[in-house]
Amino acid sequence: MALRGNACIGQSGGPTAVINASMVGAIHAARDIPEIEQFYGAIHGLKGILNEDLTELFREDPDMIDALKHTPSAAIGTSRLKPGEPELERTMEVFKAHNIRYFFYNGGNDTQLACHLVSELAKRSDWEMRIIGIPKTIDNDLAITDHCPGFGSAARYAAAAVQFAGKDSESFGNPHVVEIMGRHVGWLTAAAAAGKREPKDPPHLVYVPEVPVTRAQFLEDCRKAFKEYGFLVVVVSEGFAFEGEDRSKVSDKVDSFGHARLGGVAHALSELIEKERISSRSRNDRLGNLQRAFGWCAAKVDLDEAYEVGRQAVLRAVRGETDIMLTIDRLSDDPYKSEIGDTALMSVAGVEKRVPREFINEEGNGVSEAFLHYVTPLCYGVAQPMTDELPHYPRLVGFPAEKQLPPLKK
Amino acid sequence: MALRGNACIGQSGGPTAVINASMVGAIHAARDIPEIEQFYGAIHGLKGILNEDLTELFREDPDMIDALKHTPSAAIGTSRLKPGEPELERTMEVFKAHNIRYFFYNGGNDTQLACHLVSELAKRSDWEMRIIGIPKTIDNDLAITDHCPGFGSAARYAAAAVQFAGKDSESFGNPHVVEIMGRHVGWLTAAAAAGKREPKDPPHLVYVPEVPVTRAQFLEDCRKAFKEYGFLVVVVSEGFAFEGEDRSKVSDKVDSFGHARLGGVAHALSELIEKERISSRSRNDRLGNLQRAFGWCAAKVDLDEAYEVGRQAVLRAVRGETDIMLTIDRLSDDPYKSEIGDTALMSVAGVEKRVPREFINEEGNGVSEAFLHYVTPLCYGVAQPMTDELPHYPRLVGFPAEKQLPPLKK
Repeated sequence: MALRGNACIGQSGGPTAVINASMVGAIHAARDIPEIEQFYGAIHGLKGILNEDLTELFREDPDMIDALKHTPSAAIGTSRLKPGEPELERTMEVFKAHNIRYFFYNGGNDTQLACHLVSELAKRSDWEMRIIGIPKTIDNDLAITDHCPGFGSAARYAAAAVQFAGKDSESFGNPHVVEIMGRHVGWLTAAAAAGKREPKDPPHLVYVPEVPVTRAQFLEDCRKAFKEYGFLVVVVSEGFAFEGEDRSKVSDKVDSFGHARLGGVAHALSELIEKERISSRSRNDRLGNLQRAFGWCAAKVDLDEAYEVGRQAVLRAVRGETDIMLTIDRLSDDPYKSEIGDTALMSVAGVEKRVPREFINEEGNGVSEAFLHYVTPLCYGVAQPMTDELPHYPRLVGFPAEKQLPPLKK
Repeated sequence: MALRGNACIGQSGGPTAVINASMVGAIHAARDIPEIEQFYGAIHGLKGILNEDLTELFREDPDMIDALKHTPSAAIGTSRLKPGEPELERTMEVFKAHNIRYFFYNGGNDTQLACHLVSELAKRSDWEMRIIGIPKTIDNDLAITDHCPGFGSAARYAAAAVQFAGKDSESFGNPHVVEIMGRHVGWLTAAAAAGKREPKDPPHLVYVPEVPVTRAQFLEDCRKAFKEYGFLVVVVSEGFAFEGEDRSKVSDKVDSFGHARLGGVAHALSELIEKERISSRSRNDRLGNLQRAFGWCAAKVDLDEAYEVGRQAVLRAVRGETDIMLTIDRLSDDPYKSEIGDTALMSVAGVEKRVPREFINEEGNGVSEAFLHYVTPLCYGVAQPMTDELPHYPRLVGFPAEKQLPPLKK
């Protein structure tokens, strides 16, 4: 039997184009559960819980909640706060004060760790509740799940952007280095190759942190491809470093290339291409925050799955499941099919899934066929047609829950 | 009566999402003119003319030419070469050797200057020909014309990107500085405000090179807006500098903020926001080359006009007009209507149209209503629906014309 009480959802870490879809899925499911009396949104994730900044989501206009499904970014706000012991205890106090019996936290591996810690404390505190982690990260580095909601849409933007940037470079006949998000893992960088159809298409070279290459190989790769195609598009993860040349830890302003970090790795590599006279002029772009926010590039497959993990999180919690993160389990590549599964929070908490070696080509400078089979369906489909007008999205009205506790001491 | 002979088109300067549409308009019109025997594309603009790198566009598959209409970037290649006397003389030799009687050059004010110089030389050389400049620049800084093909699509991308980036900043509650192309003029930066519907929407502050503000005002503006909205999106032209603080000319690696130029003006302003403790964390993005290349954001109005100026250039040249650049003359804002006009090349050659003071608000930190009336129709409309698959565009097969002259001495 379902626990009677309130539910709470939080959004954590970097937003995505589809993280709100997961929240909307959860709200839609929760509306039909009589035992769930109110659905609180934690404003800026854990920060909002600590400060009792909770908003009553059931009081929002249902049409607006529907529209939120297509709204990129974290509509109730996000943060990167990692809870220590005092924060965990305060969280329990707030849950008790607001009779919160269901907690859904939507984020990456740090977020799943936070879920796990809260869950452990709830048990010790004799507070019966259901805690379910909803996966989300454009980095795609959560373990167990085939992939993460948010990744497909970021991949669609990055892969499209590389095709467009490549057309621009081809017009000039220049080398061009494009920097993609990913400090530790190269999933999104590899995905930027998903739009390549023929050898001449960009990207010509792909470098990820998991497979470092030497400076000499990089230069040789660039020389060869530039000569062959008459232009050159290199995509590289922000966290890439040359083999044997450790990224400097002295300062985050200096990278392993010995350059000021201001311009990032693409800037450094682009300067290297000029310095080594591969071309007198090389350009660089950093896709930046738009990778996770460019709503017009949301992928339909990604949006549908994000919505479904939100919905399933509520349904499973009500059935009595807890201490799990939902997963997306792939059933087939073509036609692409998946179903929602789950795994213990412990199995994903704080674990980082790196790109496996077989997803990168032998030379370490491109992706493999196996990776293309993996990634192509994930960035497929228009989630919502572009509008003639410029994009405009709703904001929650906000119905703050009454605070029950003395304010948190700073 | 139309001159009998060959035509030649070149693409010059930065590509746009719609520059190929102008070429396609010209090819379509020229196909129906019996006096135009072959239509040469100059590979990489003037460079291609100097080297006799000409491709026979009439030999390409007509379906592919149609598909090129929606292909961003410069399909026959572009360059930024500015002709001196030897280049102009060589150009005439090549025109004579290939019986080129029509020359269409598609670009900004430097390109129009090149057209004018070629035209003057043709007259002195007693070589009868028609030379027409086709306007193009995302910078929108050509004189006389109401606006420039390419601008509306870049504006659509920049304005959409700012809405998306703003959603991301709002999720965290951070300041965010977005850098937009424009070294001397702020048209595109101002256009990035076109998606704002309510005061809370981004951008909250807009700074263009034409209207410098003091460092003190900038900081005061940021403090006030950040406090009011709980997040802050500033858009700024890459060429912006504070009033009274001249941009250093010593090195292009150092900007007027005294920072290494690597990160650009957005990076420098973002650091300033942190340093002045407006917020402990500020982010920045540089929209980069995607502004002129992101084909999915091509604006329908822009694409249609780009096609039409290409078509009209050929029709007018055949009627005997020469020494002109085509213009877009606005007839009304709402409903938006325009017609194609023309102006003497001399009136636009090398002239830079800056954003007029009345298009910026009194405080110098936002756009005016008059500017919104101006820009809104230009970035309107989906030029081509997004595809479920990632974007893929055709390339010209290429039918090189036989060279007639001894190679150019370097």
